[in-house]
Amino acid sequence: MQRDIHENHRIEIRLSGSGGQGLVLAGVILAEAMGVYEGKNVAQTQSYGPEARGGASRSDIVISDTEIHYPKTTQLDLLLSLTQESCDQYYRSLKENGILVVDSDKVRQLPSHKAFSLPFIKTAKEQAGTPVVANVVSLSAVAAIMELCPKESLLKAVLMRAPRGTEDKNRTACELGYEMGVEARRKMRERKYAFDH
Amino acid sequence: MQRDIHENHRIEIRLSGSGGQGLVLAGVILAEAMGVYEGKNVAQTQSYGPEARGGASRSDIVISDTEIHYPKTTQLDLLLSLTQESCDQYYRSLKENGILVVDSDKVRQLPSHKAFSLPFIKTAKEQAGTPVVANVVSLSAVAAIMELCPKESLLKAVLMRAPRGTEDKNRTACELGYEMGVEARRKMRERKYAFDH
Repeated sequence: MQRDIHENHRIEIRLSGSGGQGLVLAGVILAEAMGVYEGKNVAQTQSYGPEARGGASRSDIVISDTEIHYPKTTQLDLLLSLTQESCDQYYRSLKENGILVVDSDKVRQLPSHKAFSLPFIKTAKEQAGTPVVANVVSLSAVAAIMELCPKESLLKAVLMRAPRGTEDKNRTACELGYEMGVEARRKMRERKYAFDH
Repeated sequence: MQRDIHENHRIEIRLSGSGGQGLVLAGVILAEAMGVYEGKNVAQTQSYGPEARGGASRSDIVISDTEIHYPKTTQLDLLLSLTQESCDQYYRSLKENGILVVDSDKVRQLPSHKAFSLPFIKTAKEQAGTPVVANVVSLSAVAAIMELCPKESLLKAVLMRAPRGTEDKNRTACELGYEMGVEARRKMRERKYAFDH
């Protein structure tokens, strides 16, 4: 784990998009990976209300080394957005230097030039055989970008929740996404390095 | 809706048991039924931590007519327990006059004689064809006991989350559970009536 990202021992992540993109399930999977397989304290919350009914769906995960007294997110360390609407709606919840990760085909207007814009849905469709697993592709990328856990812990949690008969597609989605995340992180570091010198 | 139960406009429910009983999914389904189809504000939380790793799994739902500022449960209006361990662990979180609902085969030692002890797992197995849908049976009973929503809203949410090919079993589970809950509520009322006079 990178202490520069996690030094406050509390990480807040929001997975956002539209209903039907499987982000509630993605939140549950990440919570299980971190809580069950990585031994962290995790609170994972879905909220439904006037805001959510506006069209943007969201699933929040708080991860901590210590007990979580307040499970609601306050300032996001990372926001994933799979639609323009959810990006517009939640971008202001990111903390300074928080990380924005978006689907490059769905989010065309980026609020920050520092965002990671990656083809999650296209990759799910073309390389894992179905756009349905775009939630697993993007979740896996997020886990790698944040260095939350080894791929093995995430994959275990993904396969626990994969409906029977979809294991192979979900495994592929997890591997593709994790690889995308590792590569994105590598680029982020190079960029930082370039800035620093 | 019964105003006697819901007069404070905030309802807190915990679904508890062991991992693998599908209670995380049940929590998500109830949140969707109330949030998406009934237009309530809902926060639904899974927590993983030292407590959860002790063996008892839990999924919390807070339902409100007004905005939910604090999504963590404080005093439960209803606790569902599908194992003795989870019943023992969480019973003290029930508020005074809170409702305890347990599986009659799994929870043999009741901490209160006012509990609803119902054969959820047995009913799932014998009448819906698989113990896997015991989560839907018990969730549907809870919804009916609390008069949270009409069966139709719950059924819509159940079918949204049912893996392809399991729709019929899940529909049966929902109908059986809701019926069990309606009957339990009827008995509760009769008993109250008997006490009052």
